Amino acid sequence: MRVTITGADGFVGRAVVRRLRDMGAAAELLLVDRAFAEPGPERRLAGDLTDPVLLAAATRECDALLHLAALPGGAAERDPAASRAINLDLPLRLIEAMAGRRLVLAGSIAVFGAAPTGPVEDHTVPVPDSVYGTHKRMVELAFADAVRRGALTGAVLRLPGIVARPPAAAGFGSAFLSDVFHAARTVRPYVVPVAPDATSWLCSVRACAANLVHGLLGGGAEAAPVTLPALRVRMGDIVALLARRFPGAAITHAEDPALRRAFASYPPLATARAAALGFTAEPDLDALIDAVLADLPPNTTQGYPPCA
Amino acid sequence: MRVTITGADGFVGRAVVRRLRDMGAAAELLLVDRAFAEPGPERRLAGDLTDPVLLAAATRECDALLHLAALPGGAAERDPAASRAINLDLPLRLIEAMAGRRLVLAGSIAVFGAAPTGPVEDHTVPVPDSVYGTHKRMVELAFADAVRRGALTGAVLRLPGIVARPPAAAGFGSAFLSDVFHAARTVRPYVVPVAPDATSWLCSVRACAANLVHGLLGGGAEAAPVTLPALRVRMGDIVALLARRFPGAAITHAEDPALRRAFASYPPLATARAAALGFTAEPDLDALIDAVLADLPPNTTQGYPPCA
Repeated sequence: MRVTITGADGFVGRAVVRRLRDMGAAAELLLVDRAFAEPGPERRLAGDLTDPVLLAAATRECDALLHLAALPGGAAERDPAASRAINLDLPLRLIEAMAGRRLVLAGSIAVFGAAPTGPVEDHTVPVPDSVYGTHKRMVELAFADAVRRGALTGAVLRLPGIVARPPAAAGFGSAFLSDVFHAARTVRPYVVPVAPDATSWLCSVRACAANLVHGLLGGGAEAAPVTLPALRVRMGDIVALLARRFPGAAITHAEDPALRRAFASYPPLATARAAALGFTAEPDLDALIDAVLADLPPNTTQGYPPCA
Repeated sequence: MRVTITGADGFVGRAVVRRLRDMGAAAELLLVDRAFAEPGPERRLAGDLTDPVLLAAATRECDALLHLAALPGGAAERDPAASRAINLDLPLRLIEAMAGRRLVLAGSIAVFGAAPTGPVEDHTVPVPDSVYGTHKRMVELAFADAVRRGALTGAVLRLPGIVARPPAAAGFGSAFLSDVFHAARTVRPYVVPVAPDATSWLCSVRACAANLVHGLLGGGAEAAPVTLPALRVRMGDIVALLARRFPGAAITHAEDPALRRAFASYPPLATARAAALGFTAEPDLDALIDAVLADLPPNTTQGYPPCA
C-alpha cells in the first residue's frame, strides 16, 4: 500500500510517521511538507502543495493519502485569502485528485465555533465562527458529498486540542494548553491565561496519531465527519495534577476572556460514533498527562517562551 | 446606485428587472448573463462569469450586486465539476470581489436536503444531500464569515420553489411544480408525479422578485442565511383549486417516489426572522395561484412538454 502524508514534518505528522514505523505498517510512505528538518528512511517531497505540479506529484502514485497540512487558526484569521488557498482550495483539489482512492482529512473541532452552546454530540451540526473553522466545515461538506456520490473512500477526522505541541507553536492561539506542560516539566513559573474552571477537549499527540493511522489504514467511507474522542478537562485539574508531579512548579491563573472564549469554553462532548469506529482517547487525566509527558522532547528548556 | 444583476435573463432575473422597473427604482442597472434573448433599456453584458475578465467587468463599477446565476440542481448532480466552478468558485470570487460593497446571493432550500426531518425553523442548521445543496451551503458559510469579518454587507436569501417556471425548464427536476399550472391553464390532461398529500414550499416568482429586490436595495448585513417565507402546500390542494378554476383540466396523480422525496416531502416551515426583516410571501394558496396565473406568459401552449 502506497501512502502519502502531507504536513508530514509537522508536530502531528511526525507522530503519525513514528506510529507507522512503530507498527511496522506495510506501507510505502511518501512524506510531503514545505521543508524537512532532517532526512529519514521514507521518500520525501518538499514544496508547496498549492502548486498543482507538486500536488500531482504527491497524489499520482498513492493508494491512500492523509492530509494534515493546514494554515493554523490564528494565521488563517489574519490572512483569509491564504486560508482559502491552503485550507479550502487545496483540500477540494485533493478530493478531486484522490477519486477512486482513500483520503483521510484532518478536520478540527474549530468547526463548532468557540464556546459551543450545549453538549456536542454526533448529531450536532456545527456552525463555525472563524475563518479556519469555516474553511474546515466547507471541506467537510464537500467531502461528505464526494463520499455520497461514491467518488472516494475515507473520512474527515475532527481533531480536538492536541497536547503538548512544541513551545510557542506558531499560529496557535491555543498554545497555553501545551505550554503549561512545558512550564511544569521545567519547573518554571507560568501564568495559565484562563481560570481553573475553564474546560477544553484534549488528547495526546500519540492518541491523535493512532487515530489518524487507524482512519488511514482502515476501510470504509464515512460521509459525515467523525469527531474524534477527547477528554474534557478543567484547566484547574491539569494544573493540580502537574503541581503534584512537579512540586516546584509555580503555576497560577489570570483569565484572558478572549482566550477563555476561544479555547477553553468547551461543553460536554459525546463521541459514540467514533468509539464504534474504533477510535480512542485517553480515559482519564492521569493517562493523558502520562502520555503527554512521555512524548515531551528532552530539551524543552531550549526555545521556551516567556511567561504569559 | 449602480446595481449589477447576474443571471439577469433567467426566469427569476427577468422578474427582478421587471420589479425594479415597476418600482421606478433609482438604480443604474448592469444586467449580466450568458446571452440575452432580446435587447432592453439597461446596459447588458453577455458572457461567462467564470471568466475572470468578465467577472471583473461585472463587478468593477457597482455598489451592489445580486447574484442569481447558477447551475441548477439536476445539472449540478450530473456534473459536479461544473457545479464547483459555477455554484462554488464563482460566488466565492464574488464575495472577494465585492469587498466593501453589498452582495446579495440567491441561496436555496436545497441546503436542507430532500425531505428534511422535522420542522425547519430559523435555528435549523442545514445538512445538504446533493451537489447543488452542498455548494450552496458552502457559499453560505463563506458569506457568513465574510460578514462576520466586516468584509461586505448583504445577505444570502434562500429561495423556496418558485412557480411557475417556463414549461420544462432545463435542469430542474422540480418542473412538475410549475407544469401543473401550465397544464391547467391550457386545459390539457396532466399527471402530477407525486400523490395529493405531497408537500412543497412554494412562492410566486413575483413574490420572489420582490424579496430579492428588498434584500438588494435594503441595508444591513445578515451573516446567517435568511430562509425566505414560502407557503407549504399540498399538491392535492393545488390540483383541487386549479380544477375549480379550469373545469376542463384533467389532472391526476401517479407517484414517482424519487420526485416525491426530492421535491415534495417538505415539513412545516417557520420563517420569523425573514418576516422581521420585511420579506413576504403569498398568505394562502388562493393568493399564490392568483399570482402565478397573473404572470404566466400568454402562449404557454407553445413549447408545452409532453405529459409525464
